[in-house]
Amino acid sequence: MKRTDYCGALTAAQIEKEVTLVGWVHRRRDHGGLIFIDLRDREGLVQVVFNPQLSEEIHQRAHQLRSEYVIQVTGKVMRRPEGTVNRELPTGEVEVHAGDLIILNASLTPPFSIEEEKEPSESLRLQYRYLDLRRKSVQTNFILRHNLSKAVRRFLDQNQFLEIETPFLTKSTPEGARDFLVPSRLNVGQFYALPQSPQLFKQILMISGFDRYYQIVRCFRDEDLRADRQPEFTQIDLEMSFIEREDILSLMEEMVRTVLKEVKGIQLESPFPRLTYQEAMSRFGVDKPDLRFGLELKDLSDIAARSEFKVFREAVEKKGLVKGINAKGLATLSRKELEELTQEATGRGAKGLAWMKVTPEGMEAPIAKFFKPEMLKEIGQRLEGAPGDLLLFVADREKVVYEVLGHLRLVIGRRLNLIDPNALKLLWVTDFPLLEYDETEKRYVAMHHPFTSPMDEDIPLLATDPLRARAKAYDIVLNGTEIGGGSIRIHQNEVQSKMFDLLGITKEEAEAKFGFLLQALQYGAPPHGGIAFGLDRLTAILAGVDSIRDVIAFPKTQKGICLMTNAPSEVDPRQLKDLHIKKTE
Amino acid sequence: MKRTDYCGALTAAQIEKEVTLVGWVHRRRDHGGLIFIDLRDREGLVQVVFNPQLSEEIHQRAHQLRSEYVIQVTGKVMRRPEGTVNRELPTGEVEVHAGDLIILNASLTPPFSIEEEKEPSESLRLQYRYLDLRRKSVQTNFILRHNLSKAVRRFLDQNQFLEIETPFLTKSTPEGARDFLVPSRLNVGQFYALPQSPQLFKQILMISGFDRYYQIVRCFRDEDLRADRQPEFTQIDLEMSFIEREDILSLMEEMVRTVLKEVKGIQLESPFPRLTYQEAMSRFGVDKPDLRFGLELKDLSDIAARSEFKVFREAVEKKGLVKGINAKGLATLSRKELEELTQEATGRGAKGLAWMKVTPEGMEAPIAKFFKPEMLKEIGQRLEGAPGDLLLFVADREKVVYEVLGHLRLVIGRRLNLIDPNALKLLWVTDFPLLEYDETEKRYVAMHHPFTSPMDEDIPLLATDPLRARAKAYDIVLNGTEIGGGSIRIHQNEVQSKMFDLLGITKEEAEAKFGFLLQALQYGAPPHGGIAFGLDRLTAILAGVDSIRDVIAFPKTQKGICLMTNAPSEVDPRQLKDLHIKKTE
Repeated sequence: MKRTDYCGALTAAQIEKEVTLVGWVHRRRDHGGLIFIDLRDREGLVQVVFNPQLSEEIHQRAHQLRSEYVIQVTGKVMRRPEGTVNRELPTGEVEVHAGDLIILNASLTPPFSIEEEKEPSESLRLQYRYLDLRRKSVQTNFILRHNLSKAVRRFLDQNQFLEIETPFLTKSTPEGARDFLVPSRLNVGQFYALPQSPQLFKQILMISGFDRYYQIVRCFRDEDLRADRQPEFTQIDLEMSFIEREDILSLMEEMVRTVLKEVKGIQLESPFPRLTYQEAMSRFGVDKPDLRFGLELKDLSDIAARSEFKVFREAVEKKGLVKGINAKGLATLSRKELEELTQEATGRGAKGLAWMKVTPEGMEAPIAKFFKPEMLKEIGQRLEGAPGDLLLFVADREKVVYEVLGHLRLVIGRRLNLIDPNALKLLWVTDFPLLEYDETEKRYVAMHHPFTSPMDEDIPLLATDPLRARAKAYDIVLNGTEIGGGSIRIHQNEVQSKMFDLLGITKEEAEAKFGFLLQALQYGAPPHGGIAFGLDRLTAILAGVDSIRDVIAFPKTQKGICLMTNAPSEVDPRQLKDLHIKKTE
Repeated sequence: MKRTDYCGALTAAQIEKEVTLVGWVHRRRDHGGLIFIDLRDREGLVQVVFNPQLSEEIHQRAHQLRSEYVIQVTGKVMRRPEGTVNRELPTGEVEVHAGDLIILNASLTPPFSIEEEKEPSESLRLQYRYLDLRRKSVQTNFILRHNLSKAVRRFLDQNQFLEIETPFLTKSTPEGARDFLVPSRLNVGQFYALPQSPQLFKQILMISGFDRYYQIVRCFRDEDLRADRQPEFTQIDLEMSFIEREDILSLMEEMVRTVLKEVKGIQLESPFPRLTYQEAMSRFGVDKPDLRFGLELKDLSDIAARSEFKVFREAVEKKGLVKGINAKGLATLSRKELEELTQEATGRGAKGLAWMKVTPEGMEAPIAKFFKPEMLKEIGQRLEGAPGDLLLFVADREKVVYEVLGHLRLVIGRRLNLIDPNALKLLWVTDFPLLEYDETEKRYVAMHHPFTSPMDEDIPLLATDPLRARAKAYDIVLNGTEIGGGSIRIHQNEVQSKMFDLLGITKEEAEAKFGFLLQALQYGAPPHGGIAFGLDRLTAILAGVDSIRDVIAFPKTQKGICLMTNAPSEVDPRQLKDLHIKKTE
């Protein structure tokens, strides 16, 4: 089939050239006896003119054209007449004078316009995804995603990584999220699980001596789809042997810099800042701080302990904390607005939100009376308060203080317009705790996963004070979102067994679920570690879109439904019979 | 962690260099007070020497080394002494004189040796896959696979294809093979299916205007695993808009040639031969002929019709065929060997196998008496029989004749050693029938799939004689194996509806399963087509291995079991309860 050029690629260089274009009728205007079509393909738009003086028959045929008709046009590229040049269109200097027209397919009137301006409702977009995907703003996201994958592959290939595929029909070892299960027909009563990540397989590949592995791979988690999650998502997944943490951090930093340079033309500063988990929590209240703005948390526990304010003093006495942030210039907030901020705080678990306004005359606040003047001065200094500032305080257990102030910091940062939407601020967070204590299950759980290596110097703590042991784990954070995380893994059988033990996994259970790993670790496992990046999330941030649904071709709703195909759906009872399963209420 | 070089990369150029290597102890020999280690990594082996005169302590430590221990060695690269150079090893000119040794991990004695010579049983290999994958012959296959994927991606990228991911949790529309089902927890009683291919999604992407799509993607079929199948396999999957058959065949031919040149250094002849389905069947008895050797089928129906041999005459009278092949030089076969050949024939559905031996005196055969001498001469001429040849005949329905002689051609080709294992013979097979008649289900079924476009000129046949209608379908065949197949798709709603109709799919059923496609076809679907290559099969052929299990890192057995992880497995009853399903007997 003939096509000489993409519509969107025509420029003045092609003037006088006879071209054949194919594409969709984006817009039609009839003017002065002529028919003007904006013809659209993946690369863009170009104006096509049907002139009855050129061909009466073709002009007549063009009368049939409606939005989204698929056509083939042959004609000559001409400079647009004086005064009609469209500077906003890359092809705006030229137009094609059609000498021939073939209508390849007709179209019903679309339920929404493919033109940019109006954004249809998301459910309509997802139902008619094939139309939604025709919109330039949407297609651009997928071209970016393609370029990202390509740049990542090129970098990893140049660095001796081998792309090796791991299975999707694997063993169910739920730890953290729920597995999606797949009934086996050939093995009645047994189930495969879809992988939550290729974690164990990539470790096995290291034990197999492949040295460097990568895969851009789908992963699955059967979670209640809060916020911006999808049941299936894509990871840039990699693993290396014979490395320490420093090796992988520096290589991955190079990868991110190379890829962003290539894909977005951005030159990132190097090295990326690094914060320990402890420092990130202490300064920003979260383990994924957005470094595009300041508003850091300051510790006031020492002052609080000396104050007359019972709420503050007691928090410190109960081994909690008092911390504050400075909402620069927000002393103008009304009672009502302060009330709203307090609700943000209590919604995150605080018992209340204390505040002080800085005035030229000193602190103004109901609680000011509980503090001696020099204490107020000290507080002001520590928070760098200037007249007009609003100081906010939370006194509680450490966890609550961080949760609340970490959140308020973001709320206020947005309110004060401190966040540059074009900035890209990356950092590493390291030295995560190895374990957390799960209050519901009354047991330790791994903060990353059970295969993460403790710090060598913290191994003795596993026996004495496990919650204090740190892991060789690291996250990479972009603009306040975790875009990747990984760790150096346990490569010694004894350490892995001890870890299972700590997590309350019995020997039998460990053997049943992870026996092959424990065994493999006994046959010459090299030191190894890796990382996985969330490709959907990374693409969304770089595309400047809020939801990962905008960078997934066929995403699902929060109920896990594909509105286009109506998956999931009822199946033929015979299929269930073949699988030896039946539905229950 | 320090590593200056890969073991397998050391050459005389590094002599006198101080290197740090990491890897596995492949072999240890103690000789003349020295300890020799072959140290192995992904890139190969190098000899390391521990000499007590260099360091007593290190030599002492080396005494602990056993097979598959993981070590780090620092030392100087030296030229091997006169007479000890190993020409078979790329690193055989040098050895490393170890000045330091760190044992990174120990190993139990492996259940089989990683050394090349002995091939353990397949079940042992799969159980200890991490050890099996350490073998050089196995690792090489995965490096080839990586290079193949890389070359394919590069070619497609240069040709404006976008890599776009399609969902794995999709809708069940079994057609052909069985779907793997995934119960949905959030939508009780409903199921996702794992895709048998991204067929409909890639067509939707074309309707979305992406123009050129590709993906190297996992597909799933819940089949009884005969022969060399896997429940999950990988396709190089692509689709293009605004093309005709010729466009895709020539581009794909260029891709295959480019990739094989890059990966294997092979310059393939171009253009690849093309056979219509009809011609392939008629000359080779199969639609995927192995062109590495001749032994073509010759039609003898006209002679048979005139003969006195009832079996032959009746076959022709019943609208069947009589065809023969010439087993060159096999007139020496004994009665018993002929009996074995006959069994091959009857095993494939023939009622018997007729034969004639060509002697200097003419045909020698029990059936010769039913033919006039000039007929025997004519038969001999048509089959190019020379003294010493064995002529084999099958008379039956067309289908049986092709099935049997297509098979016998391969048996005899192998027996006569006509097949060059190093040759790569590619061809296209085109003009497949659109439909087949399924005797069991008493209905037409699509030979490729229901979205394949009929030839324009054969569309009228859909109403009058559907089995005669040909499809715009094509397969690419390498050495007698179909490595890819595709078609130009239906892009008109009416044709697609008519097709469903022909296949006995009711309007309601079509709407429920494929409603989104039928609808999308109404909103400006461009002409489009595509192809999918089987990456596992292609890699296996190029790697020269018999089974795709050798090019899949973690394959499953014929029962669908992963012997390493023991997937599939029993799951926690709570998981089934969450999914609202229960097992039945």
